[in-house]
Amino acid sequence: MSAPLVATPQLVEFSEPLQLRSGAVLERYALMVETYGTLNASRSNAVLVCHALNASHHVAGVGADAAQSLGWWDNMVGPGKPVDTDRFFVIGVNNLGSCFGSTGPTSIDARTGRAWGANFPLVTVEDWVDAQARVADRFGIEAFAAVIGGSLGGMQALAWSMRYPKRVRHCVSIASTARLSAQNIAFNDVARQAILSDPDFREGHYAEFGVVPRRGLSVARMIGHITYLSDDDMAEKFGRTLRVDDIQYGYGVEFEIESYLRHQGDKFAQYFDANTYLLITKALDYFDPARDFGGSLAAALAQSEARFLIAYFTTDWRFAPERSREVVRALLEVGRDVSYLEIDAPHGHDAFLLDDARYHGALRGYFEGIARRTGVAA
Amino acid sequence: MSAPLVATPQLVEFSEPLQLRSGAVLERYALMVETYGTLNASRSNAVLVCHALNASHHVAGVGADAAQSLGWWDNMVGPGKPVDTDRFFVIGVNNLGSCFGSTGPTSIDARTGRAWGANFPLVTVEDWVDAQARVADRFGIEAFAAVIGGSLGGMQALAWSMRYPKRVRHCVSIASTARLSAQNIAFNDVARQAILSDPDFREGHYAEFGVVPRRGLSVARMIGHITYLSDDDMAEKFGRTLRVDDIQYGYGVEFEIESYLRHQGDKFAQYFDANTYLLITKALDYFDPARDFGGSLAAALAQSEARFLIAYFTTDWRFAPERSREVVRALLEVGRDVSYLEIDAPHGHDAFLLDDARYHGALRGYFEGIARRTGVAA
Repeated sequence: MSAPLVATPQLVEFSEPLQLRSGAVLERYALMVETYGTLNASRSNAVLVCHALNASHHVAGVGADAAQSLGWWDNMVGPGKPVDTDRFFVIGVNNLGSCFGSTGPTSIDARTGRAWGANFPLVTVEDWVDAQARVADRFGIEAFAAVIGGSLGGMQALAWSMRYPKRVRHCVSIASTARLSAQNIAFNDVARQAILSDPDFREGHYAEFGVVPRRGLSVARMIGHITYLSDDDMAEKFGRTLRVDDIQYGYGVEFEIESYLRHQGDKFAQYFDANTYLLITKALDYFDPARDFGGSLAAALAQSEARFLIAYFTTDWRFAPERSREVVRALLEVGRDVSYLEIDAPHGHDAFLLDDARYHGALRGYFEGIARRTGVAA
Repeated sequence: MSAPLVATPQLVEFSEPLQLRSGAVLERYALMVETYGTLNASRSNAVLVCHALNASHHVAGVGADAAQSLGWWDNMVGPGKPVDTDRFFVIGVNNLGSCFGSTGPTSIDARTGRAWGANFPLVTVEDWVDAQARVADRFGIEAFAAVIGGSLGGMQALAWSMRYPKRVRHCVSIASTARLSAQNIAFNDVARQAILSDPDFREGHYAEFGVVPRRGLSVARMIGHITYLSDDDMAEKFGRTLRVDDIQYGYGVEFEIESYLRHQGDKFAQYFDANTYLLITKALDYFDPARDFGGSLAAALAQSEARFLIAYFTTDWRFAPERSREVVRALLEVGRDVSYLEIDAPHGHDAFLLDDARYHGALRGYFEGIARRTGVAA
């Protein structure tokens, strides 16, 4: 085990216009990037980690910035970890449109000298992947040993395999899906309505008014949070335990679960940008690679050349096991090399972020296989 | 089959103070009531129908009021229906604190001459049952042949069996639970937060300001609505079908499911009172008869003397089958006569309101048994 990582984010700027799927063009943009480990001479040991809704480029280690916070997937990525940075060169990229340093709604639009706000164009999973491909170019990485992500990050891994087949040797998609269900879209839309209907949203130009649609963001986060946990896990952690001595017959916090959720909502509203929340949920809703292939996921995945690992958790009801199984079936149908990992974990969707010996053990083994196949020395 | 029912609501006033579980006392109150069929001479054929969150006393038939709307359980209650009003005298009561004519937040508080608004005391399922018992007194009904309800209505049926054991011969609890889970409370609390944080809520005194917390109510209803439908049912009905020709890359309605949910939210916000929504969700959260018996549901249900029918639907994830099964087990444990009915229906929680031949057939048979046992002539 090596010393703990200290990661230094770097801003990578691009002046070449980026054509977005919506038809809009971003003339220039910058992405916040963090790397861990060392790129080998043959540039064959690079792993791209894609993040989910509220995460960032800060994947592992202790941030060199003021926050000093631990990376969001520090239990997975680092020296001696399943994705071993003593062996692999790992890149974390804050997605375009997010709010942790990459160009997005909170950035200044050079054309107007004001924050983009609601004028920032909607981006898609495919746009993110295109933007990330330019980061790979900048590092001189022709092909990634692996592209890996959970949830929305898993969608990006899938999109990479289809959009840049020659540049992805292994695709690891965890707790994800190839398209949102009606129920998923429903939850996203309610969350959006909470934000859009907050009077402080000011049609997305809240920054100019010096306000934040805090209430809407908080409700949106609370809704999301319920879907990240399993019913059983919530019952186990909170049950009907009261936070107070006895029922108060009022609308203050009474049950532990209320305290927990409201705290999560308030915390989120303090650091996350509302326009970013809106556009990321839209990217989730829009993702549907089968759509360009007459609804055939197999036909879409036939574009890929990678080996796949599809991992999922039995109690995940946000992206249920069946959503992963249909990806596995489609990959088998087109003859791809696919492993699947079903973990019987109680923690619902959030399980992909948690430490679980079977999950991490399997990922560790899979990445050892990647190292062998790509000739990465131990 | 007799002629269609035309129901005339009547306001039943009570001037005897009602002690609420919270400690508050309501000096006087009125309940809006509708009846169907004829009370027999021995007063043995009365059935009380308890309503869920957004329903009312208007259970069956065509309302005699301006709205002329069909009762919320018209497929279950009426001449020749499973709960046959040619045989039974059926009573629907709008619950205390609701907004369809019974005393509640929208009523005038005689002490102040102004609408109660947020000053209306929180009520519990037990309080509702106490208030309903006085309606029974008024009709001279010593014991109900049956108390029946779905969802929150099913909780009232259970509470009746425990609180007034001698007055309930049969308890029919459908798609219900003996206590909300942490996840249930979580959804309720997010819905409440959406209302409470709407600037138009004005701490519950919106009526005095001539406004309505429409946005909060709409978001609350959207959240609720998602939990009423099963994932599969939503996929079947809406899937990823677009409402528009193509993706618009904006926040207007794009998917059918968005159109449906927003419509449900807007419609609800036009007719339902926000304070009522808040207090009813609290009554749901508080219901926990086992709590007074050291957590033993069996001990709580040992108070009852009724026969029970516990019915539930396989795809109901709001009140999952396991919640009903634990009621059945507790009733068996204390030697009660209990039947259970599991219906493999795709429609989730809402299935209790829908027409399903197996479900209605079983209820019809059960009520024929009730008629036999209580000596009600066909």
